[in-house]
Amino acid sequence: MTAAAGSTRTEGPQQPVTVVITSPLETEHAARIAAAYPDRVEMVHRPDLLPPPRFIADHGGDPAWRRTPEQEAAWQEVLGRAEVLWDFPAGITDLQDIAPRLRWVQTTSAGVGQVVKRLGLGESDLIVTTASGVHARPLTEFVFAALLSHVKCFPHLRAEQQAHRWERFCATELHGQTMAIVGPGRIGREVARIARCFGMTVWAMARDNAPGRAEQLGVDRLWTRPELREMLGGADCVVLCTPHTPETEGLIGREEIASLKPGVVLVNIARGVVIDEDAMIESLRDGRIGFAALDVFRTEPLPPDSPLWDLPNVLICPHSASTADTENAKITDRFITNLGHYLTGAYDQMEPQLDKRRLY
Amino acid sequence: MTAAAGSTRTEGPQQPVTVVITSPLETEHAARIAAAYPDRVEMVHRPDLLPPPRFIADHGGDPAWRRTPEQEAAWQEVLGRAEVLWDFPAGITDLQDIAPRLRWVQTTSAGVGQVVKRLGLGESDLIVTTASGVHARPLTEFVFAALLSHVKCFPHLRAEQQAHRWERFCATELHGQTMAIVGPGRIGREVARIARCFGMTVWAMARDNAPGRAEQLGVDRLWTRPELREMLGGADCVVLCTPHTPETEGLIGREEIASLKPGVVLVNIARGVVIDEDAMIESLRDGRIGFAALDVFRTEPLPPDSPLWDLPNVLICPHSASTADTENAKITDRFITNLGHYLTGAYDQMEPQLDKRRLY
Repeated sequence: MTAAAGSTRTEGPQQPVTVVITSPLETEHAARIAAAYPDRVEMVHRPDLLPPPRFIADHGGDPAWRRTPEQEAAWQEVLGRAEVLWDFPAGITDLQDIAPRLRWVQTTSAGVGQVVKRLGLGESDLIVTTASGVHARPLTEFVFAALLSHVKCFPHLRAEQQAHRWERFCATELHGQTMAIVGPGRIGREVARIARCFGMTVWAMARDNAPGRAEQLGVDRLWTRPELREMLGGADCVVLCTPHTPETEGLIGREEIASLKPGVVLVNIARGVVIDEDAMIESLRDGRIGFAALDVFRTEPLPPDSPLWDLPNVLICPHSASTADTENAKITDRFITNLGHYLTGAYDQMEPQLDKRRLY
Repeated sequence: MTAAAGSTRTEGPQQPVTVVITSPLETEHAARIAAAYPDRVEMVHRPDLLPPPRFIADHGGDPAWRRTPEQEAAWQEVLGRAEVLWDFPAGITDLQDIAPRLRWVQTTSAGVGQVVKRLGLGESDLIVTTASGVHARPLTEFVFAALLSHVKCFPHLRAEQQAHRWERFCATELHGQTMAIVGPGRIGREVARIARCFGMTVWAMARDNAPGRAEQLGVDRLWTRPELREMLGGADCVVLCTPHTPETEGLIGREEIASLKPGVVLVNIARGVVIDEDAMIESLRDGRIGFAALDVFRTEPLPPDSPLWDLPNVLICPHSASTADTENAKITDRFITNLGHYLTGAYDQMEPQLDKRRLY
């Protein structure tokens, strides 16, 4: 294989490229990767050195699983040869020492900014491509599952059904409601698109509200950071989908929560630290937040003594809203495309790349 | 007020038109009707002669309520003067005798074909305008609340939450699934529109599959009545939204149910008699139907001893999926527009009119 016409850097690596899979991946997807560029790539997929997955598209694997000393030695040897990784390997803090030849990591998550920061790779020339966008659809479906089952009073219906009680009642509808999106990235824009299909008015907070920007993002109105509380005060539902960056940590604080419209519905698919969890719990108790669907928490797993478990107006999802059985097929497609660019040296066509300074 | 230019019949009624409200209606909406054409209309809204509503947009009212003999006499006198009715009055079988001046009924439901048949009005020249279309949005939101909370495993999440258990898991997604719609009327077409927003493939069964018809209805493929079983066998979810007519009674029989794809999701927002309820229950028990969200039943209220109440893969809604707190405002808007046409004799501009032979 020769360098692609129009490639923008060098001709790419000349030696066979060692690709190591570091998180559980179904055999069918690993086989597709291995078959994509068989002459240029040495593919290392050693399920025996990885924790067993607990479900389809489980990238963490069983947390109780440990390598034997022999397995650990084999694993270190494999990483030492790696030029490309599928996922950052778990439990390693000195990645640059262990994998000195490493040049590119393809992650299976979108929110890996903090991982890169912890590994001290913010200043390196490592290429990091992420799963940003892959989760937009499953997350959006989770958001609307939560919003619709709330406006259609499904918990009430379940209780009535258990009691064998038939009493007609009046629900409400999403149509005509206003949604505020905090973080109109790939996920937020997909949420906005579906919200408009349902006839909602969609607002978003963005760094930049230049003319035409709202239309470009597919929302009805943009608000800036200083207008955040005003935006929150006018929305019937608020969806948090920011990345975790120093700017977004604590973005929804006690005063922002106090500015919410009474009875508002909150969905958090961003990160737990984006919102003041204690203030959120108080507002769930006093009803200012009418209902919350939460996929992320300050501490994960959510501690067994968290009051959130027992609040009747909370739906807890164990950080799985982005997981769908279709996910690894999509990331594999993306990885194979990126691998083609990598092999021809077209590094800046690999996408989506993490901005290692902004952390998203 | 004079006849509108271009009106298609006579100049309309010359005497003040007596409009009688026969089902519970919020005062604000009744006041809007009364204020619309105050010189031409005598508006009779007597909440004291109607059963008290149990919830917003309750058109039935408290079933235990009864008129006193004095109230009943007053009610008969009012109906005797009526030229226009807001809803068919409940509990009356000889409407033509009781309301001999009646020329037009605006209903608050879409499915009134059987009522018209029972009242023997199929051959009369009574104008019947319905609420067809008003319920499309609330019903569509109910359909997607059911589909999304199922693919996102909300019952599983609720059980995990009750147990304070945090175990990551893998859901699936609507995106890429195939939906089959039986009855692509106003409601079915709105369901189809949203399904396509979610990236589903949408099929429908229609009487007519002339070229261009699928595109016109907003679906990917049309199937005819003889192809019904084949269509059902290929769908991941089936949504029933036909009217109740002789043609649709028992349309989904035992053999149609046997042709469903194992694990299919079924939503019935049509009428209970459209499907063989006994065969449906068997298929819910053996898992051929993976999940059913049912708003309508063979007998309503659903009898306390129906096995449907206790099936874990059934969601029961007490024929309320079409009800939204925004509903009477919309029907009032439509009624006022129709009243304007009626007063100018533009009868064929009144819509949507029930086809009293086809019963929808």
